[in-house]
Amino acid sequence: MRLDAGLLFASDSRTNAGVDHIATFRKMNVFERHGERLIVLLSAGNLATTQSVVSLLRQRLEHHEEKHLLNCESMYDVAELVGRTVKEIVKRDAHAKSEGQGVDFGGSFLVGGQIKGEAQRLFHVYSQGNFIEASDDTPYFQIGESKYGKPIIDRVVRRDTSLKEAAKCTLISFDSTIRSNLSVGLPIDMLLYRADSFAPADPHRITGDDPYFNKLRRGWGEGLRKVFAKLPDEDWFR
Amino acid sequence: MRLDAGLLFASDSRTNAGVDHIATFRKMNVFERHGERLIVLLSAGNLATTQSVVSLLRQRLEHHEEKHLLNCESMYDVAELVGRTVKEIVKRDAHAKSEGQGVDFGGSFLVGGQIKGEAQRLFHVYSQGNFIEASDDTPYFQIGESKYGKPIIDRVVRRDTSLKEAAKCTLISFDSTIRSNLSVGLPIDMLLYRADSFAPADPHRITGDDPYFNKLRRGWGEGLRKVFAKLPDEDWFR
Repeated sequence: MRLDAGLLFASDSRTNAGVDHIATFRKMNVFERHGERLIVLLSAGNLATTQSVVSLLRQRLEHHEEKHLLNCESMYDVAELVGRTVKEIVKRDAHAKSEGQGVDFGGSFLVGGQIKGEAQRLFHVYSQGNFIEASDDTPYFQIGESKYGKPIIDRVVRRDTSLKEAAKCTLISFDSTIRSNLSVGLPIDMLLYRADSFAPADPHRITGDDPYFNKLRRGWGEGLRKVFAKLPDEDWFR
Repeated sequence: MRLDAGLLFASDSRTNAGVDHIATFRKMNVFERHGERLIVLLSAGNLATTQSVVSLLRQRLEHHEEKHLLNCESMYDVAELVGRTVKEIVKRDAHAKSEGQGVDFGGSFLVGGQIKGEAQRLFHVYSQGNFIEASDDTPYFQIGESKYGKPIIDRVVRRDTSLKEAAKCTLISFDSTIRSNLSVGLPIDMLLYRADSFAPADPHRITGDDPYFNKLRRGWGEGLRKVFAKLPDEDWFR
């Protein structure tokens, strides 16, 4: 989410290749230079693809290649670099359709952050390597299993929503998805970045026994039922 | 939904073949013999397929063929007849894959109701003609664009939920989907059937200017925001 108050990133950590192959992997990667830039990558799709993309981005940085995440001049250039790397990996792994054996090699990224000299920005990088940027009208993106959790975000989040309201809404959105779909699971990684702060990234990991998360789930469930009970009935509800 | 109190059926009425071809069609069909049986069909998928299935089922009834919806001895037989007809139409229209031009001819149905002598039952008939039945553990089925509206149903509906609570939950679920996805749209058709009543079907059509529906939408939106405001914050929400 790209809100007036700052950026909010959240990812679950379940990956699956069928119900027999379920595993936990962190889908949030942070690159930062204190006081100068913060870049966060969230990934969805083929894990081999998205892991390779992140490894390659990291390797380029360590090898001080000409262009890497810590010397890009703008977030636009960062999105372009991520998109180029996605294209490279997808092309490498899925080079011949006949060899793909029906596997979807696609992977997509949410890329957000702030580089000194420009405002915070958020991009959605597609599997094809092209990308779109969040705007005032559409302040958030989702990737992966996004439908279950979308309505609550659509009802609550505007660009002027506070970071704490957005954080609660995001946790509720994930909880809704987790209850309705096996492919999304705890822990949730969440990172809040206050606009123009260039503060060190401080991601939080929310596990199943997190007391706050459980209080939130309960409070939400009870709150919903109360709202329902107060909604008016109709004559034809016989 | 197959609740202890009765059956609840609801369908939107938007069909699309891309954003350029959006139309309104009723997706709920009722077959009844007063005091003896009520059968409700809800459809999703390829409109040519689902319309043909309903037309054929109706034609067989009018021509007094050996087996039709009004002489099936059980709801199981009704589901089997619907499934067989679906298979027949899909086979007819999609007989040669090479001729299909990439079109998905699939269509699925929810088939529910009650026939004197047995309890109310609810089935989900797949595009392949096979079907599953709702149970006490899983008292509801959805077909079509189902993900957006599923979380609210999962949180609220149990077999012992009252018909009026279920009706409100269903309308909210549709509203959530309508806000988040263009392929679902008003009006909504809704039918409530009280268990063992064999009362005449009395479907309600809810349009965009329905005062009750709008009161419900508003009440829900305001209620949600109040619940949010009351949820506890966390220290790290800075």
